[in-house]
Amino acid sequence: MKRRNLCALIAILVLGGTGLAQLNFASGIAVEDFKPASTNQPGREYPMVNSEGRVRASISAPEAQRVQLDISAVKYDLVKDTSGVWTGDSDPQDEGFHYYQFWIDGAAVPDPNSLYFYGAGRWGSGIDVPAKDQDFYALKNVPHGQIREQLYFSKHTNGMRRCFVYTPPDYDKDLTKRYPVLYLQHGGGEDETGWPNQGKTNLIMDNLIAEGKARPFIIVMDNGTWRWPENVPRPRRGERPRGSWPPKGWADGFMKTLLEDIIPMIDANYRTLADQEHRAMAGLSMGGMQTRVIALANPDVFSYVGIFSGGSISMEDVNNAPGFKEKIKLVFISYGSRELERSRRFGGDPKENTEALNEAGMKTHFYVSPNTAHEWQSWRRGLHEFAQLLFQD
Amino acid sequence: MKRRNLCALIAILVLGGTGLAQLNFASGIAVEDFKPASTNQPGREYPMVNSEGRVRASISAPEAQRVQLDISAVKYDLVKDTSGVWTGDSDPQDEGFHYYQFWIDGAAVPDPNSLYFYGAGRWGSGIDVPAKDQDFYALKNVPHGQIREQLYFSKHTNGMRRCFVYTPPDYDKDLTKRYPVLYLQHGGGEDETGWPNQGKTNLIMDNLIAEGKARPFIIVMDNGTWRWPENVPRPRRGERPRGSWPPKGWADGFMKTLLEDIIPMIDANYRTLADQEHRAMAGLSMGGMQTRVIALANPDVFSYVGIFSGGSISMEDVNNAPGFKEKIKLVFISYGSRELERSRRFGGDPKENTEALNEAGMKTHFYVSPNTAHEWQSWRRGLHEFAQLLFQD
Repeated sequence: MKRRNLCALIAILVLGGTGLAQLNFASGIAVEDFKPASTNQPGREYPMVNSEGRVRASISAPEAQRVQLDISAVKYDLVKDTSGVWTGDSDPQDEGFHYYQFWIDGAAVPDPNSLYFYGAGRWGSGIDVPAKDQDFYALKNVPHGQIREQLYFSKHTNGMRRCFVYTPPDYDKDLTKRYPVLYLQHGGGEDETGWPNQGKTNLIMDNLIAEGKARPFIIVMDNGTWRWPENVPRPRRGERPRGSWPPKGWADGFMKTLLEDIIPMIDANYRTLADQEHRAMAGLSMGGMQTRVIALANPDVFSYVGIFSGGSISMEDVNNAPGFKEKIKLVFISYGSRELERSRRFGGDPKENTEALNEAGMKTHFYVSPNTAHEWQSWRRGLHEFAQLLFQD
Repeated sequence: MKRRNLCALIAILVLGGTGLAQLNFASGIAVEDFKPASTNQPGREYPMVNSEGRVRASISAPEAQRVQLDISAVKYDLVKDTSGVWTGDSDPQDEGFHYYQFWIDGAAVPDPNSLYFYGAGRWGSGIDVPAKDQDFYALKNVPHGQIREQLYFSKHTNGMRRCFVYTPPDYDKDLTKRYPVLYLQHGGGEDETGWPNQGKTNLIMDNLIAEGKARPFIIVMDNGTWRWPENVPRPRRGERPRGSWPPKGWADGFMKTLLEDIIPMIDANYRTLADQEHRAMAGLSMGGMQTRVIALANPDVFSYVGIFSGGSISMEDVNNAPGFKEKIKLVFISYGSRELERSRRFGGDPKENTEALNEAGMKTHFYVSPNTAHEWQSWRRGLHEFAQLLFQD
């Protein structure tokens, strides 16, 4: 502990004279109870996490001049030892999953020690900071469902597509049984691997089902990445988009794919209960915004709606969506506590909006994930809460 | 083309004076028909491959002193342009899949532009050099099977394990039908993700089945990584192991897991034809060596045996394995043409061994993958050949 701080001090003094930009180290003194992260590649010691949620990363780069750990939008300088290995800590991170990367002499690269996850528009490093409630997504010796990679042809996009399908533990036991379906969408810069990988969808469901807390259902995780609508002028590079953001019609492409390709394909290939009563849609961030648009436009298709960190549904929305108030069985809205303040700026206060729906006679549920931001721990908890309310009527 | 060679020359002259080690550039002049590799992350231009099989890699590293592309055991120096982007070519590579990485000022890191694959004991970059016969593993609009992630408890290792299971396209159509099973193992430093990812197992099978060239069967891909047997003294670090290599009993651990955990779990959870006649085992490299040991010891369990780049079965083996000659329906041995010479040094010439079995009345098949080495293109082709011969009796 003392030795590390001394190294950092020497590094500041030495590098300070070389004309490099100011160095940035974690504040405070780290508690020395670091353990290898659960998201490390097999057998790798680093990166480590301590009880404060600090990340300690390490990489050998003998000839490098500057190596930084880049996590939660802060770059921390690492310090080189005599063998050319750079090591350093971050400030304490929130519980849960975070994307991160290294900067090595100006190159942004993944940490060769971590597993890789798709997010922020790239496959790159991720790290799980142990959470107090991590038991709900722990791998346990309970009956397990499957995550299936499903390839299919899409008429709408005229090409092959891929989704992942969670089937519950008993799916292959009783071959006469049919199941409700949740269509569950990722966020912007993520893809269909988000929920099965960093989202821990299968483990969350397997544990809930083993405890009798959720009804077994199928979950379909597809790719909702959208393209700029052809009939809307595209802003030039560097120009701020005019009018509403996202552009009008932005969710139409995925809506068509979902309604015309994905749902019919799932109903044809899985033992689904293929009606509105047994179909739900949910998503996080961009996927929540898609859920909002698609569910409001299709109350005959879905009966349960979940929006995690992706806005809310107002009475104005409901009044402009014929059938929504009567047919929707649950509107579930959730946020991380640390992003709640910011969320009020987009489409009104999500809690007030949700309470207004409730007062108008709709069944709603508003959930706030404690001490988390716009990150996967909020969405794991969101799914965990939402799943227990689904298909119970 | 000219400009690039000039850059390289200037780099040699400039860096030559700075005391850096000698630079290493690709030989000859590259044909300028480079295209983004199929193994790139979505939307990434680099790395590229040209018609000669040269790889052109690129990364921004403005403050780096030396950046190298490390592929097929050769490190190629990249050249920096005025914006800090380093770019450079490799020599022509064999068709098919290769692991690679960058060296940035002494740090070995994945290329942030590529997809990642598990091999050589790590998740890292991989690149597919288009092969003349790539059509057999192309993604086409044919009926597709599924790759299922299967979690299960192992009594033998007293913990949770994971395998991937390929189910053929018609598996969920006729729920009364039962299928034969192939247990298919990866190589050393790889894991259960090797065959479904870089192996293209599902696409190879889907295409074969669509053409009527293979009988639909289930494929189980598990993790065969072995531990040093407890009753065999372990060589010290840096010491050459004494006696036979691998150590006697090395395959016993996975054999137990396979026979006592995996096969019973698969037969309990999938609609298998659960007898010797409808069970095959195959593997590549280390997985082929495991297949050899396990099949010789268990002719009552498996009837088809495939060894890809992992040795062969001699008449001596057969004579020491009671029941093997009578019960085994096919011994399939394959190699890449570029590794065949070396293969003769281990356990005899594989072709001669296989011919001897044939002369003794066993059904055999010997296959050589043209112009490939100890790499995935040899094994994709091995599976493609082997699958057409399976469960045909």
